[in-house]
Amino acid sequence: MIKSVGYAANHSFSSLKPLAFEREEPKQNEIEIEVMYCGICHSDIHQVKNEWHNTVYPCMPGHEVVGRVKSVGAAVTRHAVGDLVGVGCMIDSCRQCEPCQAGEQNYCEGPNSWLATYNGPMVPSAKAPTGTNQYGKDNTYGGYSTSLVVPEDFALKIPAGLKPEVAAPILCAGVTTYSPMKHWGMGPGKKVAILGFGGLGDIAQKIAKAMGAEVTVFTTSQAKVNQAPVVGAYAVHVDDHDMLESLKASFDFILSTIPKKTDLTPFVPLLKRDGTLVIVGALEPLAPFNNMQMAAHRNAIAGSLIGSIAETQEILDLCAQHGIGPDIELLDIKNINDAYTRVEDGEVRYRYVIDMATLKPDAVEAA
Amino acid sequence: MIKSVGYAANHSFSSLKPLAFEREEPKQNEIEIEVMYCGICHSDIHQVKNEWHNTVYPCMPGHEVVGRVKSVGAAVTRHAVGDLVGVGCMIDSCRQCEPCQAGEQNYCEGPNSWLATYNGPMVPSAKAPTGTNQYGKDNTYGGYSTSLVVPEDFALKIPAGLKPEVAAPILCAGVTTYSPMKHWGMGPGKKVAILGFGGLGDIAQKIAKAMGAEVTVFTTSQAKVNQAPVVGAYAVHVDDHDMLESLKASFDFILSTIPKKTDLTPFVPLLKRDGTLVIVGALEPLAPFNNMQMAAHRNAIAGSLIGSIAETQEILDLCAQHGIGPDIELLDIKNINDAYTRVEDGEVRYRYVIDMATLKPDAVEAA
Repeated sequence: MIKSVGYAANHSFSSLKPLAFEREEPKQNEIEIEVMYCGICHSDIHQVKNEWHNTVYPCMPGHEVVGRVKSVGAAVTRHAVGDLVGVGCMIDSCRQCEPCQAGEQNYCEGPNSWLATYNGPMVPSAKAPTGTNQYGKDNTYGGYSTSLVVPEDFALKIPAGLKPEVAAPILCAGVTTYSPMKHWGMGPGKKVAILGFGGLGDIAQKIAKAMGAEVTVFTTSQAKVNQAPVVGAYAVHVDDHDMLESLKASFDFILSTIPKKTDLTPFVPLLKRDGTLVIVGALEPLAPFNNMQMAAHRNAIAGSLIGSIAETQEILDLCAQHGIGPDIELLDIKNINDAYTRVEDGEVRYRYVIDMATLKPDAVEAA
Repeated sequence: MIKSVGYAANHSFSSLKPLAFEREEPKQNEIEIEVMYCGICHSDIHQVKNEWHNTVYPCMPGHEVVGRVKSVGAAVTRHAVGDLVGVGCMIDSCRQCEPCQAGEQNYCEGPNSWLATYNGPMVPSAKAPTGTNQYGKDNTYGGYSTSLVVPEDFALKIPAGLKPEVAAPILCAGVTTYSPMKHWGMGPGKKVAILGFGGLGDIAQKIAKAMGAEVTVFTTSQAKVNQAPVVGAYAVHVDDHDMLESLKASFDFILSTIPKKTDLTPFVPLLKRDGTLVIVGALEPLAPFNNMQMAAHRNAIAGSLIGSIAETQEILDLCAQHGIGPDIELLDIKNINDAYTRVEDGEVRYRYVIDMATLKPDAVEAA
């Protein structure tokens, strides 16, 4: 067993605290990773607070993980000890269903769907049709920890030229915004609007530009509008009705990264005929849409869930190739609970990444 | 001027009554039609009652019109006196914008959008960016009347073998359900669910089968379920939770023809990965969707507005070729107000068609 330390919450109302635990040694096809950096995703906060009503406690979040391979199982061929690797939201899938066979593990239709890096299977055994758990795990501990053990084919290669701490948020925020933009055919000649200018919005607008699209960012934050030229975004204010009116039928694609239920009806008329509005920020009941607007230009509202393993590697490589990545703030893990508050208040510029060097082996005793 | 009689409402709260009026003689490119049959669309009722807050009074509905060409303008080449023709929801469009150039007049982006067969331009002059009305008409009188005058290229040919009274509802109900099924690629090997079993649902399930798809119809009406084999549908009850559970991830496409705001979240999990739910029944604010469901299989919710002129001709021809058409009840126009109540109560099997022979030239004096 691998002695490990991480930060976890024991209840929906409790803060994160150090927790000592053990991970199993890597199996034949698995690798052990010494975690160096882990991004903080807004969904970590939803999960810790049990806002999706499926949290398994203790809850140790973290699915934007970068580290070095420390040991490998006997059958491992993709990674070697010392390699810089990343782990995103998934650490396994059923590998049998049509989406898995098509390489879209993020839409796994197996009895337990995919195995999340933390919190366990997407469809827990109690809700699975067979009542079984093919992964044998009801809870998984994520990357807010010193170590991680995963199947080798769910670990990504961090390309040369991409700093490990910058690569971390690409593993969730990056691929979550890249996957739908790729699926709906964004590229040269296409106009994309990004709603929300937080961790997802920041990387989304950079990726959209790297894909060759023309990008507009919408935010309610005047401070972010003022800062926008720094990161190269063209930002407008959501309350500017004249601006919204002037942008009617302008966009092929709108990506909402707003992390909570929001009335998006003002944005639907901004879509061109056959344009699509994809919501990746809020995995929850939506504010109502108006079909009079949607029908008028045959528009669609769609969901999209992270991205496949192949897409995750693609977006890491694309970011390295274009020299782009999220703007990040490095965090001492001691300050994680304050950091959560700043994420909820939209004050981060733009993604927190935990420096795991700040997590000491004696963190539990010291706490 | 052409002396005409029709049935119109003077206020949102009044019933339909006979109205004597005059139509302009056909211009160079226009044809005059002697109306034989006109279908009753649920949207006629919405419009008469001003439920879309844009009704121009007097409101004379009717956009499922079949009749014989009585006279033609000097430049008309497509139709000849005596021809059997049909008119659907549109009688003109801007003819300049990208959708019009692409033959998708139903998504016209001109300043007034398309000209509706009744009620006038989709974007009335008061709401048009230029403040003008390119059609010179603020109100148009529809097909609940003895005559109609329209540009020749907005009149469809009624194919031999299709009874005129059966053809009428195809001009709106038919093309409204055909267009999205065509756009989203339904055909052999595809599984389609139809929600609602009224005028749209009846023709939709027949069209879907004619296109080669496998069809399931959902209705809350036990009476309609019992009757279903008569029209060849496989129907299930919307409240049957075990049935819904067993149909998870079964459909490539769901078409909701339900004519009012309805919680459709129970149906979203029935979509396969990348499946789309299109709502054609309710042009209004929708009940909220849950993005957790939509994201799980990258599903989309979309709107679709009637269909193009070319698609309308296609579906008329397809119905003639397959010997299909809506089940109809012929109506004496005197009973139109009672008929509206039966439409609202879902009692019609499945579409009312007014027999215009029941509308006498002296209807106003006789009333």
